[in-house]
Amino acid sequence: MATRDMTQWETAICKVVSHDGEEEIVIRGHRMSDLIGGVSFAHAMFLMLQGRMPTPAQARVLDALLVASIEHGIAPPSMISRCFASYGTSIQAAVGGGIIAFGDRMGGLGEQLAQAMAERLGKLGDPAAIGEDRLRVEAKALVEAALRNGGRVPGYGIPLHGTDPRAPRLLAIAREAGTFGAYCRLAELIGEELAASRGGKAVPMNVDGVGAAVALDLGFDWRATRLFLLTARSVSMGAHFLEEQAQDTTWRHLRADQIAYTGREPDNAGS
Amino acid sequence: MATRDMTQWETAICKVVSHDGEEEIVIRGHRMSDLIGGVSFAHAMFLMLQGRMPTPAQARVLDALLVASIEHGIAPPSMISRCFASYGTSIQAAVGGGIIAFGDRMGGLGEQLAQAMAERLGKLGDPAAIGEDRLRVEAKALVEAALRNGGRVPGYGIPLHGTDPRAPRLLAIAREAGTFGAYCRLAELIGEELAASRGGKAVPMNVDGVGAAVALDLGFDWRATRLFLLTARSVSMGAHFLEEQAQDTTWRHLRADQIAYTGREPDNAGS
Amino acid sequence: MATRDMTQWETAICKVVSHDGEEEIVIRGHRMSDLIGGVSFAHAMFLMLQGRMPTPAQARVLDALLVASIEHGIAPPSMISRCFASYGTSIQAAVGGGIIAFGDRMGGLGEQLAQAMAERLGKLGDPAAIGEDRLRVEAKALVEAALRNGGRVPGYGIPLHGTDPRAPRLLAIAREAGTFGAYCRLAELIGEELAASRGGKAVPMNVDGVGAAVALDLGFDWRATRLFLLTARSVSMGAHFLEEQAQDTTWRHLRADQIAYTGREPDNAGS
Amino acid sequence: MATRDMTQWETAICKVVSHDGEEEIVIRGHRMSDLIGGVSFAHAMFLMLQGRMPTPAQARVLDALLVASIEHGIAPPSMISRCFASYGTSIQAAVGGGIIAFGDRMGGLGEQLAQAMAERLGKLGDPAAIGEDRLRVEAKALVEAALRNGGRVPGYGIPLHGTDPRAPRLLAIAREAGTFGAYCRLAELIGEELAASRGGKAVPMNVDGVGAAVALDLGFDWRATRLFLLTARSVSMGAHFLEEQAQDTTWRHLRADQIAYTGREPDNAGS
Repeated sequence: MATRDMTQWETAICKVVSHDGEEEIVIRGHRMSDLIGGVSFAHAMFLMLQGRMPTPAQARVLDALLVASIEHGIAPPSMISRCFASYGTSIQAAVGGGIIAFGDRMGGLGEQLAQAMAERLGKLGDPAAIGEDRLRVEAKALVEAALRNGGRVPGYGIPLHGTDPRAPRLLAIAREAGTFGAYCRLAELIGEELAASRGGKAVPMNVDGVGAAVALDLGFDWRATRLFLLTARSVSMGAHFLEEQAQDTTWRHLRADQIAYTGREPDNAGS
Repeated sequence: MATRDMTQWETAICKVVSHDGEEEIVIRGHRMSDLIGGVSFAHAMFLMLQGRMPTPAQARVLDALLVASIEHGIAPPSMISRCFASYGTSIQAAVGGGIIAFGDRMGGLGEQLAQAMAERLGKLGDPAAIGEDRLRVEAKALVEAALRNGGRVPGYGIPLHGTDPRAPRLLAIAREAGTFGAYCRLAELIGEELAASRGGKAVPMNVDGVGAAVALDLGFDWRATRLFLLTARSVSMGAHFLEEQAQDTTWRHLRADQIAYTGREPDNAGS
Repeated sequence: MATRDMTQWETAICKVVSHDGEEEIVIRGHRMSDLIGGVSFAHAMFLMLQGRMPTPAQARVLDALLVASIEHGIAPPSMISRCFASYGTSIQAAVGGGIIAFGDRMGGLGEQLAQAMAERLGKLGDPAAIGEDRLRVEAKALVEAALRNGGRVPGYGIPLHGTDPRAPRLLAIAREAGTFGAYCRLAELIGEELAASRGGKAVPMNVDGVGAAVALDLGFDWRATRLFLLTARSVSMGAHFLEEQAQDTTWRHLRADQIAYTGREPDNAGS
Repeated sequence: MATRDMTQWETAICKVVSHDGEEEIVIRGHRMSDLIGGVSFAHAMFLMLQGRMPTPAQARVLDALLVASIEHGIAPPSMISRCFASYGTSIQAAVGGGIIAFGDRMGGLGEQLAQAMAERLGKLGDPAAIGEDRLRVEAKALVEAALRNGGRVPGYGIPLHGTDPRAPRLLAIAREAGTFGAYCRLAELIGEELAASRGGKAVPMNVDGVGAAVALDLGFDWRATRLFLLTARSVSMGAHFLEEQAQDTTWRHLRADQIAYTGREPDNAGS
C-alpha cells in the first residue's frame, strides 16, 4: 500500500501521443486508428482488460455475454434511471445513478461466485488440466462452504422467476465457440451439487452465475466480473431514461397510501 | 407533463415473460435467446435505442464509434475512477463516479452539436434529399449563431492537442460503409465555415463532434449522443480502476505545496 | 475560462497547516480548534460559504432553513436511498445516489427562483434600500416572464399537496429574527402577482421557493441554493437507508403487473 | 430477508399528513412546524436518527462532531467536487460524486472502529457500568485482533500529518459536556495499547476514530458513523464547487509528463 499524490501515474493501458505533428492514441500496443473500423467493441473491451486481442471465438462469446446482460426490463437499475428522468436530471446522472445502485444483493453476486471459483481453481495450475473428479470435489466444497455461511450460493436461484433462459443459452454459445472450460464446467457441477444438497430440487444458474463462469474461462480476472454488467446494462439505463423523458412524466413518487407510518404521533410527543 | 407514482409504467423496449413454464425476455420484438450468440453488442445497442435491427453497415459504424470512444488515457473520467480505487470504493462506485463527472464542458459538447444540427435539418424533411447548397447555408448559420453566443462551436477544437486522429478515421469508416449522410457532410461544412471565420485557421473536428454527426446519420435521436460515450468509456473507467487497485495505491491526494491559500490568516480573525 | 491541470489550486476557504510540530486547520481565518465546541454546524456552514461569521439571528434562520429541509417522508431522494439499501450498497452510495437524483423538476426549482430574483434585484443596488413599489414591479415582471416561458413560476405550487406549512413558518422565523428582507418580500409579492394572474387563485409558495428567498436575504449566492437542500436532506437519506437496512428487505422492484409492454411481440419480429 | 416490491413501505421516521385542509410533516412524533425555529440542525439530525430529542449537552457534542468534520482543505472529496465544477456538472452531481468517493481507505475507517467497539461493548450490558479494567481488556483484545489482521487499527494514525488537533479537542468537548462515556474511554485505551504494542511510539487517534467513539457515546448505532462525515463534508464539497466554478477553470486533468506508459509500443503489436 503506497500513499500517492496526483503527480505520478503509471499505466500499461494507454498512451496518448501528441508531439511533432504526430497525434495518436495507443491502446495496449495497438494504434487507435487501426482499431477504429478494424475491430468490434467486444474485441476492444477484451484488449483493454486483458492486454491482448481475443480470438474470434472469444470475441463472439464476450459479445454473447454483453448481449445477455444488456437488458432485463424495468429492473432496478433502469427503474432508477427512469425515476431520474422524471426528476429532470442529465442522462449521465441517471446512468451513473443506476450503476451505483448495484450492490451486494443486486448485480454483485456474480463477482462473489467468480472470486470463490477463481480462488479454488487458481491454486490448481493450468485450468485446462484439471480433471472432472477434481472439479466435482471443488464444486462440492464450494457449495458446502456457501451453505455454511448463510445458505446461498451466489449466482444460483432467480428471485421472482422460475428459470433464467439466458444461462443455458450462454453456456451453449461457449460450448459451440470452444471457450467452455474448467470454470463453466465447475459452474455446472456447482448446480448439480446444490440440487443434491436440496434433495434434488434444482436451483438454476442465473445470468450473474453464468456470466462469472464464462468470463473466467475467457481469461478475465474475477475482479472484472461486475464490469460486463455495468457496461452492458448502461445501454438499458440510457434507453429507459430516454423513453421516460419522451413520456414527459414528472416526479415518480410513492403513493401515500402505500407507506405505513409506525412511529409516534405528535400528541404523544415529549422530549 | 404528468405526475406519476411508482405503480404505472409503459415501455416499448422490453417485456419479461414469466409464466406457465415459459421464461423469456423480449427486446423490441426479438427474443433474448435469439439475440444471445446471434448479434453483436453493437447490434443489440442499436436495437435497444432505435427499435429496429441495424444493417451490417450500420452496426459496423456503431462499432467504430464505440471503439473510438472507449479510451483516452487517464483522461478525467478514468482519473476519477482511479482515485476511487485508491480510496477503496467498489468498481460500480468508481465507474458511476466517472460517468457523473461528464458535464457541459467535458463529454457534453457532442450533444450540443447534435441538438443544433438535428434542429436545423429536422425541419427540412428527408435528410438524404437535402442538397449541398442548403447544407452549406445551414453550416454557415450554425457557426454564426455559435460564435455570437460565446465564441465556440461545440465539437470542434481539441484542448491540449493539435488534431484528433479519431475524427477523420470515423468519417472514413462511415463513408466506406455507406452511412455517411447529411449530418456527416454538415459537420464537415461546419468545419470549413469555422475555418473561414478564422481567416483560414483550421479548428479540427474532435471525437465529440464526429460522434454526433455519425450517430445522427445512423438514425439516433440527438438526446442519445452522450450515451455512446458513457457506455464505451465505462470500459476505460473499469480497466483503470482495476489497474490502480492492482497497484495498491492509497489516498490519491493533492500535494500541499500545490495548493495556495488566499484567504484570511487566523491572526486576523474577528467575527 | 482557463484549462488547468491538477498541480495548481487556489482557495480562500481553508488552509491545512502541518509543520514544525504545529498542526492546524484554518477555515476562513478561524482555527478549527476554536470552531469545534465554539459554534454550531449552521454557524460553520455560513462561515464556509460566505467567509464571515453569521450573527446569532442569521445562524438561527439558517438552522430553521436546514431543519425545514431535513425530511419529507419517503420522498424521491429517500425512496432512492431505501432502494439502494435493499440492493446492498454502502451508505455513501445510497446518499450519493439520492443527491444526484435532484434535477430540474425535483429539488432544483429553488435555484431557478433564486437566480431570477438575484438577477433582478442585483442590478438595483443595496437590497435594503429597494422600495415596496419597485419590488412589486419586479415581482410582476418576474411572474410575467415565467408565465410566458411555459406557465410556471419555480418555487410556487405543491404537487400532491394543498399547502406547504413550512413556507409560512420559515417566513415567520425570518421576520422574528430580523433577517426578512427584500428577497422574502419579493417572494411574497410574487405569490400575490401569481394569484392575481390566476384570477385570485392562490398558488402557495413551497419550501424550495421560501428557501431561496430566505437564503438570499441571509447573503448567500443564488448558486448555493441547492446545497441547503442537499446537505440537510442527506440526513433523511441516511436515516431511511438505515431503517430499510434494518428491515432486511431485498431487491425493491416494480411488480410485473404494473408495467405495460407496448412494443412489438416476437412473432412479428423481422429484421 | 424479504423480497419487496415498490408498493409496501413502513417507516417510523416521518409521516406526511395531507387531508381535510390539514397539512403537516410529523418527524418522530414532532410536528415540523414546531421543529422549524425551535431546534437546531444538530437536534433535528439526532431526532431523525435516534427517534428522541437530544439533551442540550448531546446536541452540543453532535454540533462539535459535525463542525470537526465539515472541512479538511482540498482533501479528496473536495478535490473531486472541484474537478466536477471544472467539467461543468451540476452542484448535486459534484457533491454526490464526492460522497460516493468515500471508501474503505478514505472516510470509511471510523465505521470499522465503531463496529469493532460496539460489538465488544454491546455484549457487556449497560456501557456506563463497565469498569476501567474491563475496558482495558477489551482495548487490548481489539488492538491484538486488528494487528493480527493486517497491522492497523482503524481510526488511528494520520497519513501525511503528525497529529490531528481535532481528536483531543472533540474529546475535551465530550468531557466538558458530560457525554464522555465508555466508548470515548475505550478509544483512549486503544490508543494506549496501540502505543504499547509499538514500544511506546504513539499512533494518535484521528478524526475518524474520535468521531466513532463520540457518536457511540451519544447513543448512535455504529452503522450511522459515516453519515456524520457525509452530511458535514457535503458543505465542503459545495463550497469548493462554488469557488472552483467562480474561478472559471475548465477540464482539470493530469499532465502528460506525469503519466508513465509502461505498456507495449505499437511497433510490437501483434495479437
